[in-house]
Amino acid sequence: MFFRITPGIDPHTHAYITTGKVDSKFGLTLVDGIAQRVIRQTLSCESLDVKGLHCHIGSQIDSLEPFINTIKAMVRFMASFKEQNNFVFSELDLGGGLGVAYLEEQKGKYPSIQDYVEAIAKTLQEECEKYQYPLPTLFIEPGRSIVNDAGNTVYTVGMIKEIPGIKKYIAVDGGMTDNPRPILYGARYQAIVANRIHQESREIVSVVGKCCESGDVIIQQTEISPVQTGDILVVEGTGAYNYSMASNYNLIPRPGVVFIRDGKPYLVVRPEGWYDLVRRDILPEYLIEKGE
Amino acid sequence: MFFRITPGIDPHTHAYITTGKVDSKFGLTLVDGIAQRVIRQTLSCESLDVKGLHCHIGSQIDSLEPFINTIKAMVRFMASFKEQNNFVFSELDLGGGLGVAYLEEQKGKYPSIQDYVEAIAKTLQEECEKYQYPLPTLFIEPGRSIVNDAGNTVYTVGMIKEIPGIKKYIAVDGGMTDNPRPILYGARYQAIVANRIHQESREIVSVVGKCCESGDVIIQQTEISPVQTGDILVVEGTGAYNYSMASNYNLIPRPGVVFIRDGKPYLVVRPEGWYDLVRRDILPEYLIEKGE
Repeated sequence: MFFRITPGIDPHTHAYITTGKVDSKFGLTLVDGIAQRVIRQTLSCESLDVKGLHCHIGSQIDSLEPFINTIKAMVRFMASFKEQNNFVFSELDLGGGLGVAYLEEQKGKYPSIQDYVEAIAKTLQEECEKYQYPLPTLFIEPGRSIVNDAGNTVYTVGMIKEIPGIKKYIAVDGGMTDNPRPILYGARYQAIVANRIHQESREIVSVVGKCCESGDVIIQQTEISPVQTGDILVVEGTGAYNYSMASNYNLIPRPGVVFIRDGKPYLVVRPEGWYDLVRRDILPEYLIEKGE
Repeated sequence: MFFRITPGIDPHTHAYITTGKVDSKFGLTLVDGIAQRVIRQTLSCESLDVKGLHCHIGSQIDSLEPFINTIKAMVRFMASFKEQNNFVFSELDLGGGLGVAYLEEQKGKYPSIQDYVEAIAKTLQEECEKYQYPLPTLFIEPGRSIVNDAGNTVYTVGMIKEIPGIKKYIAVDGGMTDNPRPILYGARYQAIVANRIHQESREIVSVVGKCCESGDVIIQQTEISPVQTGDILVVEGTGAYNYSMASNYNLIPRPGVVFIRDGKPYLVVRPEGWYDLVRRDILPEYLIEKGE
């Protein structure tokens, strides 16, 4: 059994992806001894096996400091709990949260996986020594930082609309249904025109989806090779929180997923067809015409 | 054949649901004679039958003025097109956009369907008389204004988390996966506790979903009967843009849909089961263990 703790750390990211502050729907707060009381109650229950603590302070974190502060807060709590209850947590799960660059200009902004692992391992060791606390098994939940760069979304360019002096819109055969992050968080992406990768000329465009919604914009402004209808537009870095958040809004079928291994493609998720969109529908009795 | 026109009307609603401004991904702009040129080109094509014009200026519109201005702009355009090209559009589609109240306090804020229909029918007649234009067949696309109030989302209350002096969170067995409008647009809702409808006491709570996302909040703050785990919480006015926008984020299955007719329930969409979440998955060849 694990306890999710909200350690009260503010990682200074988007409010929607901040999960470890005191005012959070997640976990047990350290305020007013609430976490202590709940864990103590559980310890008195013979059929439950208390292993350790869990926390997760947020997503897209761009410095090591919040992680270090989290470990300090967690070990401080574990040490004080040990002192008061003579119980040692054998496991500590730090959750995820390491950010990744979505844009070329963000490269280097986020700590590397190596720096992150070194920092948290070192901090945990130091803090445990400081409190003479037995080193717990450390768990982390990396997701985005591993898989985001591994995925790209491949669109076909549809209509192109140029409003003189204002903007050029490039519509693709997808949008907020397969990538809701721009409309949800104002997330930014970059793209390349796969079949014009060697062209040197560039133009500034807005890449928009096909949903009946003005906010269905995948990239507000990006510089890409001049595109034509039928071109292949690749939006980069969509390996995390894209397919998993996909919807059928406007009855748009969800795309398939293809893995590439040693240059060979493997279809691992079949794209939805029209039947997938209606297969759970049931015609109510009163609408079924009675035979003669 | 219909032409979608962006008449350049700003309905003063949320930027995400504004669709008729000049800088829009939708339709043909009236700027620089672009719409005129495209329609003229189509008229010269014998195999195409030009019927009329379409527009849609946005959603959740709370006054009749933007609709009236749209009709004026459209008829002005139709009259000038007739004068220059001697062609009469026989149909005009105004799209949708009439707002509805989501909260008790918004009741009366939005025009009634009757006032809306009267205003647009009268304006169209007046404008056509003014330009001596043959009255086109008028189409509208009401959706939300008809169905939103007809739908409610029924949740079961799960965990309840009270942070002393800060907030009380009520978690339900759904969230942004079945209702992404709060996280997308900051949309507000109200709720009732169905099995405590006659209780008079009230408490202020936050209703949150089960997604691993701090922004998965269905109602930031609402006053409802004091709830307990297992209670039935009904979020009102979810007949439009809820089920249609649902996702499987965090692998949460989408709920079913039940129609009520003459007090009798009819299941019209089967809820998703776990199999629905993996049925399109295909194990890639290289992961399949070869037999001995």
